[in-house]
Amino acid sequence: RCHHRSVAMLDIPFPTFCAFLGSLGLLCVALVSAWCQHWRGGFSLDGGSRTFNWHPVLMVTGLVVLYGAAALVYRIPSTWSGPKLPWKLLHGGLALGAFILTVLGLVAVFCFHNSHGTPNMYSLHSWMGLGTVLLFSCQWAAGFGAFLLPWAPAWLRELYKPIHVFFGSTILMMSVASCVSGINEKLFFSLKNGTTEYKLLPAEAVFANTLGILILFFGLLVMGALARPSWKRPDSDSLDSRQ
Amino acid sequence: RCHHRSVAMLDIPFPTFCAFLGSLGLLCVALVSAWCQHWRGGFSLDGGSRTFNWHPVLMVTGLVVLYGAAALVYRIPSTWSGPKLPWKLLHGGLALGAFILTVLGLVAVFCFHNSHGTPNMYSLHSWMGLGTVLLFSCQWAAGFGAFLLPWAPAWLRELYKPIHVFFGSTILMMSVASCVSGINEKLFFSLKNGTTEYKLLPAEAVFANTLGILILFFGLLVMGALARPSWKRPDSDSLDSRQ
Repeated sequence: RCHHRSVAMLDIPFPTFCAFLGSLGLLCVALVSAWCQHWRGGFSLDGGSRTFNWHPVLMVTGLVVLYGAAALVYRIPSTWSGPKLPWKLLHGGLALGAFILTVLGLVAVFCFHNSHGTPNMYSLHSWMGLGTVLLFSCQWAAGFGAFLLPWAPAWLRELYKPIHVFFGSTILMMSVASCVSGINEKLFFSLKNGTTEYKLLPAEAVFANTLGILILFFGLLVMGALARPSWKRPDSDSLDSRQ
Repeated sequence: RCHHRSVAMLDIPFPTFCAFLGSLGLLCVALVSAWCQHWRGGFSLDGGSRTFNWHPVLMVTGLVVLYGAAALVYRIPSTWSGPKLPWKLLHGGLALGAFILTVLGLVAVFCFHNSHGTPNMYSLHSWMGLGTVLLFSCQWAAGFGAFLLPWAPAWLRELYKPIHVFFGSTILMMSVASCVSGINEKLFFSLKNGTTEYKLLPAEAVFANTLGILILFFGLLVMGALARPSWKRPDSDSLDSRQ
């Protein structure tokens, strides 16, 4: 009895969790925008550093927050019964939105590098980040082909589903690791002169470090929600190849 | 039938996987050691940059490779029956070894910073890394208290076990993200002068970036092995509070 009471205490309702997670996601987007606006000069499309500023905002919004929302669609209990197509369209649509923002985020950084004669794709951040985006594009295309196109056979859907689920989490982990290494790298680049050096921990560094920790926390909460057995669709194995 | 044949093709035997994962882990340790030895001047205990070099080696060895080995102990089928205490001691012992290497890795970087008058704990890498180590220390202590000390009640073990499992994966993800951001940061620090600048992608940068990608790959393989249903102990829920 004691045990059941304790477990029940830990059992946060899914809508409460979503409200918290949604607020945290919006906070991350607000903080990354505020960082770029207040300390990094704001936004523009002129190819300068204010073009670069779209990169962190689009990546956090697309590859972390919107991606996290897409990943959690099938944890909504209403998706467990009735027609699945609308939920598939929602899941695929959110993921597509996340993907489009991500590609725009790549365009921003490539434009900035090219207009400054800076080489692309040399840092570990860039290797991992591009790997994440490539994996995401494969994931979206394979998910579309297997689950939305009507002619994929049931055995293929059943075979591919656990792979899709595993890479879904993998991409999120890689996104978070890419964001963290990117924020770290950007702060070393930007905070160079004597008065505001990164190692002296100026307000901007505290602000952006905190943003990095909140992004990590967001990612871990999504991973936790995905792993939570009581939030998974009951009997998902026997249902997954239907429709 | 077609589906079962396809699923069987994906079903790598656990020992084969372990041999591959073990080789990959040893490769990561060898590469991080070679990086520090060949490009960063080798190792010493004098407080200089050769003392710092212990930091990446100990962190990759402890917090990633040995930690990953500890995490996978209960995926060995022999652990599923018979007395659990020897396996618990192995799991706890490997984790303790990982923790000791991790603490020595922290000592190395703090020594280096202190002997150079460099502030500690300013970068996002350091915040996340220290957070990972603190979480790991809580995880080890709570695991020891709940699963190895004989007086923890069964309901507490049952309640805490999924939390321990979740934080086990969380710490591994945070370790990998910390390693990646640390390698990225170290390369920006080390590759500064005109001929070997990071952005010109010298051999050291390719080498260390590859190391980062292999560490990520190691972490993802461990996460995948942990998540794989057929490698989990059957009926783990009903057995977890025994002994």
